[in-house]
Amino acid sequence: MTTLIAICDFLAKEFPQSPCLVEAIGPQSATVRYQVDTQSLRPGGTVSGPVLMTTADVGLYAAILGEIGIVALAVTTNLNINFLRKPSAGKDIIGECKLIKVGRRLIIGEVALYSEGDDRMVAHAVGTYAIPS
Amino acid sequence: MTTLIAICDFLAKEFPQSPCLVEAIGPQSATVRYQVDTQSLRPGGTVSGPVLMTTADVGLYAAILGEIGIVALAVTTNLNINFLRKPSAGKDIIGECKLIKVGRRLIIGEVALYSEGDDRMVAHAVGTYAIPS
Amino acid sequence: MTTLIAICDFLAKEFPQSPCLVEAIGPQSATVRYQVDTQSLRPGGTVSGPVLMTTADVGLYAAILGEIGIVALAVTTNLNINFLRKPSAGKDIIGECKLIKVGRRLIIGEVALYSEGDDRMVAHAVGTYAIPS
Amino acid sequence: MTTLIAICDFLAKEFPQSPCLVEAIGPQSATVRYQVDTQSLRPGGTVSGPVLMTTADVGLYAAILGEIGIVALAVTTNLNINFLRKPSAGKDIIGECKLIKVGRRLIIGEVALYSEGDDRMVAHAVGTYAIPS
Repeated sequence: MTTLIAICDFLAKEFPQSPCLVEAIGPQSATVRYQVDTQSLRPGGTVSGPVLMTTADVGLYAAILGEIGIVALAVTTNLNINFLRKPSAGKDIIGECKLIKVGRRLIIGEVALYSEGDDRMVAHAVGTYAIPS
Repeated sequence: MTTLIAICDFLAKEFPQSPCLVEAIGPQSATVRYQVDTQSLRPGGTVSGPVLMTTADVGLYAAILGEIGIVALAVTTNLNINFLRKPSAGKDIIGECKLIKVGRRLIIGEVALYSEGDDRMVAHAVGTYAIPS
Repeated sequence: MTTLIAICDFLAKEFPQSPCLVEAIGPQSATVRYQVDTQSLRPGGTVSGPVLMTTADVGLYAAILGEIGIVALAVTTNLNINFLRKPSAGKDIIGECKLIKVGRRLIIGEVALYSEGDDRMVAHAVGTYAIPS
Repeated sequence: MTTLIAICDFLAKEFPQSPCLVEAIGPQSATVRYQVDTQSLRPGGTVSGPVLMTTADVGLYAAILGEIGIVALAVTTNLNINFLRKPSAGKDIIGECKLIKVGRRLIIGEVALYSEGDDRMVAHAVGTYAIPS
């Protein structure tokens, strides 16, 4: 398993402007945090859909790096997201990611997204990643 | 919560030819079994995709009946399914369903599908159901 | 491009009990028909969700066979379907399929589903297929 | 049908920092442009996944505003996106959106995404929006 530090270093180089941080890497899993600022908000005081989609995508990418190492370049081929509840405006978004299939060519994982400190899921995503041969 | 017996009676009337049985109903959850026979098999000895989709759909429907009662007529509006591994030909399909949002108008749930006796998920589905007003 | 006759022969051997017929094969496209009988109906007089999913899956499979030949064994990895309107009980389901990406390893296509003789889409599906190397 | 100017004014107030412009509104359809800048790029010189998802979401939202007027507040409930080809780094992303169901409570549409000037689809999305009663 790749270390958390190696993954954070890699992502910081790949996505230098990203407000999305990897907080933990486990076996076929990762936890990520999107630091919500005023740019991520929509009128009415909620976090935008693209912020949730980004968190899901980065989180699954981090879980894959943890599993297969930072050399491979996984490419998202499908993302399906259901928006369940309005996230809180003032809270970071936390993504709990776990891989449900690690194949040689395709890796599939799911993500539960929360507003920090609230255990009701705000969105749920499933993503597929192709691994180059 | 509606009882298992009431749900089985209702489904037996709604879908008289269905080979899909409800085995358990819990809080926002259900377990279903698709009795695999030769009709459900594909050459090469595996269970067909439509069998897995049917199990996911019936399982989520059962979990919804358990939650909101058998009077309401939920309608599937979206189903997204990922096929992860080849199911075993000689085994029933088991679907473990849980609802992740129960709204007044939309209910969303996810399903993990297995070949009986094997703990590696063969497919994963997420479905949305509209509840008539 | 593989001929319609070769594809029908192949599918008849692969899925001998299937009520789903291939009606036309074109460049990266196919038209299929699901012959609706009493087994495919639900109380209230409508065609079941699994019938629509099956039609989408078979239709995309046929379009892929037309494109890459009948030797390869494509495997469905993802199917996402939206149910838009109640299909008519007494009408066959027609699926108009077109491939939107033909890669070496993944093929993706979309399907518009209709009740025969009615131009309002009853369902829309997008599917991904993995091609073995 | 709501006019293009009214929709642009509304979106400019709702999403003041958005780099996504509405270029045309038609019957149950819209065309949008995401102005790609260095922030939207990933190492390797391609447009990021979240940019494509944002374009799909904004485009469907614009098509819905065109159809039902700018007073209603549609909420995205599901977005499914397939990434088909690497978009060109130096080109804007164009989204061609059309609604496939306009119901009282749910509106569903699909989006074909392109790099400007290239007719090969780079991504395809389907989204569902709930309309408040």
